[in-house]
Amino acid sequence: MRISVFRKAHFNAAHRLHNPRWSDEKNAEVYGLCNNAHYHGHNYDMEVKVTGEVNEDSGYLIDLKVLSDIIKEHVEKRFDHKNLNLDIPYFKDVIPSTENFCYLIHGILQEKLGSDLDVKVRLYETPRNYVEYPAD
Amino acid sequence: MRISVFRKAHFNAAHRLHNPRWSDEKNAEVYGLCNNAHYHGHNYDMEVKVTGEVNEDSGYLIDLKVLSDIIKEHVEKRFDHKNLNLDIPYFKDVIPSTENFCYLIHGILQEKLGSDLDVKVRLYETPRNYVEYPAD
Amino acid sequence: MRISVFRKAHFNAAHRLHNPRWSDEKNAEVYGLCNNAHYHGHNYDMEVKVTGEVNEDSGYLIDLKVLSDIIKEHVEKRFDHKNLNLDIPYFKDVIPSTENFCYLIHGILQEKLGSDLDVKVRLYETPRNYVEYPAD
Amino acid sequence: MRISVFRKAHFNAAHRLHNPRWSDEKNAEVYGLCNNAHYHGHNYDMEVKVTGEVNEDSGYLIDLKVLSDIIKEHVEKRFDHKNLNLDIPYFKDVIPSTENFCYLIHGILQEKLGSDLDVKVRLYETPRNYVEYPAD
Amino acid sequence: MRISVFRKAHFNAAHRLHNPRWSDEKNAEVYGLCNNAHYHGHNYDMEVKVTGEVNEDSGYLIDLKVLSDIIKEHVEKRFDHKNLNLDIPYFKDVIPSTENFCYLIHGILQEKLGSDLDVKVRLYETPRNYVEYPAD
Amino acid sequence: MRISVFRKAHFNAAHRLHNPRWSDEKNAEVYGLCNNAHYHGHNYDMEVKVTGEVNEDSGYLIDLKVLSDIIKEHVEKRFDHKNLNLDIPYFKDVIPSTENFCYLIHGILQEKLGSDLDVKVRLYETPRNYVEYPAD
Repeated sequence: MRISVFRKAHFNAAHRLHNPRWSDEKNAEVYGLCNNAHYHGHNYDMEVKVTGEVNEDSGYLIDLKVLSDIIKEHVEKRFDHKNLNLDIPYFKDVIPSTENFCYLIHGILQEKLGSDLDVKVRLYETPRNYVEYPAD
Repeated sequence: MRISVFRKAHFNAAHRLHNPRWSDEKNAEVYGLCNNAHYHGHNYDMEVKVTGEVNEDSGYLIDLKVLSDIIKEHVEKRFDHKNLNLDIPYFKDVIPSTENFCYLIHGILQEKLGSDLDVKVRLYETPRNYVEYPAD
Repeated sequence: MRISVFRKAHFNAAHRLHNPRWSDEKNAEVYGLCNNAHYHGHNYDMEVKVTGEVNEDSGYLIDLKVLSDIIKEHVEKRFDHKNLNLDIPYFKDVIPSTENFCYLIHGILQEKLGSDLDVKVRLYETPRNYVEYPAD
Repeated sequence: MRISVFRKAHFNAAHRLHNPRWSDEKNAEVYGLCNNAHYHGHNYDMEVKVTGEVNEDSGYLIDLKVLSDIIKEHVEKRFDHKNLNLDIPYFKDVIPSTENFCYLIHGILQEKLGSDLDVKVRLYETPRNYVEYPAD
Repeated sequence: MRISVFRKAHFNAAHRLHNPRWSDEKNAEVYGLCNNAHYHGHNYDMEVKVTGEVNEDSGYLIDLKVLSDIIKEHVEKRFDHKNLNLDIPYFKDVIPSTENFCYLIHGILQEKLGSDLDVKVRLYETPRNYVEYPAD
Repeated sequence: MRISVFRKAHFNAAHRLHNPRWSDEKNAEVYGLCNNAHYHGHNYDMEVKVTGEVNEDSGYLIDLKVLSDIIKEHVEKRFDHKNLNLDIPYFKDVIPSTENFCYLIHGILQEKLGSDLDVKVRLYETPRNYVEYPAD
C-alpha cells in the first residue's frame, strides 16, 4: 500500500538575485526588482511530500511529528529570518532563485529521510509563484 | 483527450489512534495526544480526482453533480459527525489513521465510479497534514 | 495611536451538543447530527484580536511571541486533542456550542492580557461557520 | 536538473452550457442550471505548470515575468470579462465546459512556450470544481 | 451575552454594468470591461454576520442549519446561475454593482431574520474586491 | 446608503527590527530573530477598507480600478522589493514594525482618498500575524 503524506511549513527570509559574472545592466535586465542591492524578502511556504509504504502496525507512513521535527531542525532553523545570500554558505556561488532553493531543501530532506522514502518539495515564493522538485 | 476533474468535499468526525495489541506506554509514545481515550476530532477536507476520457457530446468527463451526489451518499453521509472508532465497522480492527481512512474512501469511490475512471483521493486531517492515495 | 494586532492559532477537539434537561427527541431535533452520543470533532481555528496603544520604544502593541506563548499555554494546551464534554470541567454544565466555547476562551485571554488591552476572539468551528465575542 | 514552476492567474467570464444538437429537455437534464439561456458566470482561477531544465546562469527555469506576460497577453486579455459562447469563436461549435476550456488554454500556452517546456493547466471553475489537462 | 455568528455561502451569476441614462462612451469610460454587452460573470462568495443574544438553553444564537436554509432559499435559489440584469426584476432600474447587490441581499436577510437580530453582509465579487453593508 | 468596499494588494520587502538607542542585548531580547543584522523579509498582504456613501448614478462607492491604481502608485511602487530600513526615509528614525508600517500606509491612502472617505488598513506580515489601523 504505497501512499503519500504531506506536511506544510513556513519561514521568512531575505534574498537578492544577482549574478556576479554579469554586468549591472544585465543583472537589472534579467532580475528586475529582485536585483535590489539592499535585498527584499518573502514568506516562504513549503509543502513536503513523502511517498512510501504504510506500516501496518501503526497505520502511519511516517509519524508526522517526526517529519515536522526534521523540517523544523533542518529547514526552518537553518533558513528562518535569514538572509539567503549572506547567512547561507551554499548561496555564496549559487543564485538563490526559488528553483535553486527548492533543490537545496529537497537534498537536505531526502538525505535525512533515507532512500526508502521518496521526497518531493513544493516551495512557494509567493502564493502565485512556486516551484516543485523533482518534476513528476 | 484524457483529462482529470476534481471535486472538493468536507465532513467532521472524531477518532482516536490506539493499537490494542500494544501496551498503554507504547500507544502513548507512538500516538501522543492522538491517543486520548476520550477521542478528539477533525474537519476532514477531501479532494477527489477522477481521470478519464472526455465525452465529446456533453463536453464532460463526468457530470460534477453526479460525482458530488456519489460523494455525499457514500462518503459524507457515512462519515460526517461520526466517531470513526465506534460508528464505522471497518475501523474495529484497523487504526483510523489518515492513511488508512484515505485508502478506505478511495476503495468506496473507485468501486462506485467503475474501472473506466481512475480515482485518486487526497484527504486533509488538518490544513497542514494530508495524505494522497494511490501515490503517483 | 490605538491599533489592533491579530494572531491566529488552531487546535483539534471532539464534542457533543446535548442538553440533559431535554428529552432525547428534543435534543435530536435541536442539535441534529451534532447530538451523536459517540461525539464528533473539529479543527478549531482561532483569531485573537488585541487592541490598545503602541509602545513608542519598541514599535509593538504587544510582542507577538508573548501573545503566541499565552495562547499556547492557556488555550492550545488546555483544549488541543481534548474531548470538550469529558475533559473540560467548564462544560459539565454548559453546552459546548461554538458560542459558549468562544466566550470561555475570551475570558481566559482577557484575564491574562489585563485591562489595558481589549481582547476579541473569533472561533471557527468550520471554515464556513464561526463566532465572534464580544460583538462589535 | 528537471523542475516545475507554477504561476497562478485569474479572470472572470460568462458562459452557458448548451448542445444545439439536443432537445431543450435533454439540455436541461444534462446541464441543469448551467443551461440558463441568459448565461451565468465564474471567477476562473488558473494554475499554469511549466516543466523543463533550469538555466545554470540565471537559476531560472523561465523568468516568471515572461510567463506572467504570456498569460496576460494570450489568456487573460482574450477571456477576461468575456462571454465564452458569444465572444470566443472557438466555442461556436464546442461546449464551453471547464474540460474544453482547459484544453483550449493548454494549447495556446504550449504553443507559445515551445516544445522544450511541458505545460500543464489546472482551471478552477469554482474553488471546489476544477480540471487539469493533460492528465498525469 | 451579545455575540456574532457567521455563515459563508456562494453562488455564481452573470451581470453587466451599464447605465441606460449615459452615452455608450460614458459607460465604457466608467465601467470599462464590466460594460461588455454580452455579460461576464463571477463566483460570488458571501459572509453573513448575525448579532444578538445567545439562548441559554440551546447555547445557540441561531441554529446555523436554520440560517443556512434561509440563505439557500432566499439568496442562493434566487441568484445562483442567474443573469442579474435579465433574471432579477430589482436590477431593471438599478445598476447590479457589488454595492447595490450587497444592499439587496442585506434587506432580504434582515427581513427574514427579524429585528431581534442585526444582519451584516459581506459580498465578494472576487477574492480581492468585496463590499460590506451596513458599514460599521 | 453608507457602505464599505475592500481591495486586497500585496508586495514583498525586507526589514530588520532594531532600536539604536538600546544595547545589542536588549535588541536581541526584545526582537529575537527579527533583529538579524542581515535583514529578513516578508510577503506583505494588505486589505484596504474604504467607507462612505454610494454614488447613485454609478452604483459605486469608488471605482475599484481607481482605488487599485492609487494603491499601486503610492504603496506597491514605493515598497515592493524594497528594504524598509535602507530604502524608505520614514524608517530612518522609526522602527519598521508592522504596527508602524500599517500606520504609515494608512496615512498615505487617507490623504490620497480625501476626507469624504474613511480608510482602514489591515496589513499581514504573515498569514497568522497582522495589524489593523485605525482600531474600531
